Amino acid sequence: MSYDYAILTDFYQLTMANGYLLKGIAHNNAVFDLFFRSAPFNGVYAICYGLSKAIRDIHEMKFSDDAINFLQEQQLFSDDFFDYLSNFKPKLNIRTIEDGRVIFPYETVAQVEGPLIQCQLIETYLLNSFNFPTLCATKANRMWLTSEKQSILEFGLRRAQGPNGAITASEAAMVGGCTGTSNVLAGKLHDIPISGTQAHSWIMAFDNELEAFRAYAEIYPKNCILLIDTYDTIEGCKNAVIVGKELEEKGEKLIGVRIDSGDLAYFSRQVRKILDEAGLDYVKVVASNDVDEYVIAEIKRNKGNIDLWGIGTKLATCYDDPALGGVYKLVEINNEPKIKISSNVEKMTIPSKKQVYRIYNGDGFMSGDIMELKEKKTLEEGYVYDPLNPMRFYNLKNPARVEALLHLRMSEGKIVSELNDWKKARECMERDIEFLPDTSKRLLNPQNYRVSISQSIHDLRTHLIETYIGKDK
Amino acid sequence: MSYDYAILTDFYQLTMANGYLLKGIAHNNAVFDLFFRSAPFNGVYAICYGLSKAIRDIHEMKFSDDAINFLQEQQLFSDDFFDYLSNFKPKLNIRTIEDGRVIFPYETVAQVEGPLIQCQLIETYLLNSFNFPTLCATKANRMWLTSEKQSILEFGLRRAQGPNGAITASEAAMVGGCTGTSNVLAGKLHDIPISGTQAHSWIMAFDNELEAFRAYAEIYPKNCILLIDTYDTIEGCKNAVIVGKELEEKGEKLIGVRIDSGDLAYFSRQVRKILDEAGLDYVKVVASNDVDEYVIAEIKRNKGNIDLWGIGTKLATCYDDPALGGVYKLVEINNEPKIKISSNVEKMTIPSKKQVYRIYNGDGFMSGDIMELKEKKTLEEGYVYDPLNPMRFYNLKNPARVEALLHLRMSEGKIVSELNDWKKARECMERDIEFLPDTSKRLLNPQNYRVSISQSIHDLRTHLIETYIGKDK
Repeated sequence: MSYDYAILTDFYQLTMANGYLLKGIAHNNAVFDLFFRSAPFNGVYAICYGLSKAIRDIHEMKFSDDAINFLQEQQLFSDDFFDYLSNFKPKLNIRTIEDGRVIFPYETVAQVEGPLIQCQLIETYLLNSFNFPTLCATKANRMWLTSEKQSILEFGLRRAQGPNGAITASEAAMVGGCTGTSNVLAGKLHDIPISGTQAHSWIMAFDNELEAFRAYAEIYPKNCILLIDTYDTIEGCKNAVIVGKELEEKGEKLIGVRIDSGDLAYFSRQVRKILDEAGLDYVKVVASNDVDEYVIAEIKRNKGNIDLWGIGTKLATCYDDPALGGVYKLVEINNEPKIKISSNVEKMTIPSKKQVYRIYNGDGFMSGDIMELKEKKTLEEGYVYDPLNPMRFYNLKNPARVEALLHLRMSEGKIVSELNDWKKARECMERDIEFLPDTSKRLLNPQNYRVSISQSIHDLRTHLIETYIGKDK
Repeated sequence: MSYDYAILTDFYQLTMANGYLLKGIAHNNAVFDLFFRSAPFNGVYAICYGLSKAIRDIHEMKFSDDAINFLQEQQLFSDDFFDYLSNFKPKLNIRTIEDGRVIFPYETVAQVEGPLIQCQLIETYLLNSFNFPTLCATKANRMWLTSEKQSILEFGLRRAQGPNGAITASEAAMVGGCTGTSNVLAGKLHDIPISGTQAHSWIMAFDNELEAFRAYAEIYPKNCILLIDTYDTIEGCKNAVIVGKELEEKGEKLIGVRIDSGDLAYFSRQVRKILDEAGLDYVKVVASNDVDEYVIAEIKRNKGNIDLWGIGTKLATCYDDPALGGVYKLVEINNEPKIKISSNVEKMTIPSKKQVYRIYNGDGFMSGDIMELKEKKTLEEGYVYDPLNPMRFYNLKNPARVEALLHLRMSEGKIVSELNDWKKARECMERDIEFLPDTSKRLLNPQNYRVSISQSIHDLRTHLIETYIGKDK
């Protein structure tokens, strides 16, 4: 699945890049911050994913002859630009928070430093690599937590964006907490456990349901989950019991029954009862049909008895909030801090090179993230400010533990630290999410998590705003 | 961008396929219908897209050695199955409505007939190929119609699903009515016009805005659109006027100014006035920033003066309704009509092989679609019924014009009719949308469009329901 990703970019990145070269500013040293402004799904956090892959791809980035020919046809660019693209070699420094970690609005998730032209040429690809995978890992995480860490299978392939947007979704879902996917190609490409049983068409292809169940159990005696709602869920469950007993006689065990319609709470209770009364208490109940974290919560409140969830559309499309607004903003050029002024305060950028520090309380729980100027090297105690409103501040004193989150991944174009694959990212998520306070994880009105800027950043930013406003007047 | 799409499928398709083979029913002749149950975005119609590509891919479908090795590792399938996959050759007949046409809920958009095993093996890929492209073409169409067919550029790459879900979006957006994309790779792969100018970072990379504008105009005198809202939209517009005048002196013309924040209606009026007063009445106003059809409608109501729209997130993610629920259901097996019973009447299927007829009134407008049994060969006059409620029926008499919509595209695995690329699909959309009544196109409370089933289908369906209910009791 290779594609010409050097030109998987917005056209304006190329017109700007060509312009920077012609104006002699292409090699000015720029610093860009990647961050997002609001947590998805009315939550307060996200699960970071996609940065490692982006860095690996940026490391290999090349403009193919094919790509260059195509750009030449546009008759808009200079020969110098094509020379530059032909000899493109990444010289960037990239610092990021680790894939799999819990991240929050307004904090710098990745900081890219290097020649202005290169920072610009990777922008779109980096954002595309981060936005959806992070969104989807976060959605999966919400479902996994709400299910109390039950097994969740991702099966949204048929509703995902095009023939392979789904593959991205399957991988990100694993980082967030899923157990496997129905997507065979995603399984093959990314070593994700795959699973699946039968659809309604299997049942309908036989003369009756019992015959269809028996046929399936005969072929897959060790992997048998039966779909029981094609005609009538309760009758279907009774047929599954017959087949479960027949499997027992052969020394095998029915793994589960799946319900894909109707009131999942009600039917799961009924089905559980029928199975238990038949001595099939080991048989799992699998539920699907437009499930998301809210449905899971409601079914649990209604004492539904479900062991395993199949989640399609709501996860693969991140249905209730299908875009993460990750952005990438210039914060410094040739050592001069830069700011974008806006009449919307939430669109003002936070200037300069930074480190992000995570503060833990005495119980080991995360209690806030603070951005400090990178040049300070450590987090200084004292007043820290809400980046949206300096009226909200607090005095940081004696934090129990402080952890720096941004680490150098790429130095002068070389990869210099281990990059997380989905399995490592998943482990990282599991460790991290333990120490995010429960109040920040709940579905309704979660408690906000404090992200602050240090006194030095606050002062720098105020100074820049005053200068700019003075300048324009 | 090749991938092993034969296994871009849900795992259960493979477990079922293997099972059909072992039970000796793999070659039973099956018929499946592809349809969707509700129109997206609270509308009543969709723009069909993605079927042609799916058919071309199904025509070439092969299970690679790599894919077969991967499946062998699962230790679940029979040798017969691997033999079958190694020698897979499509033998299907596929009839579809043409890509680019206006389609409606519950009508058969594609009908696949052939060996049960093959019908099953292509299901997920076909649905994935249809669902998102149709959704995205429909979203673009709503924006295009609301803008009164102005120019709309798609630029959602950074928010789309993964590194290449965006390419699917760019292509589908063109079918729905867009003018071009920012996505360079999509432009290259699918011959889509690409465009773009500069971002805020361009402006910020120079000492001041005027200098940044001048630099851009110098490099791109014939392609100059200036982003005017980095610091102050009105001041930015005045700087653009200076540069516009300087371009005039060189015999060139400023193409446009772009506004990317603030009140787009208000600023576009102000900006238009400033440009006109400066004699730059030919300069276009471009607007972006979370635009969708509702924002376009509101800006027009507020007498905003915008010539060209840039649409990112809301289009590429189909933000307010990010999944089309296209489904694929068994309707016949070995000439025996099949039905899926459900306690939700909207989930009951419509059995048997069909043709979809479109009825036009004397003014040439579409007045309803009617499904009739394929064996009838023509649409018979008489009573026709709402597929969800037989209490809603009408007497079809003397339609002004009747058009059959399903045409044979693939016969015994061979492609037998021209398949639409996006350009042909776009033309098809433009012709079709003219004859959809305006009342069915409006954003708020659009008038429903009648899709009906014929008396024969109604009778068959009723008979099957009665039989099944009798059987289960």
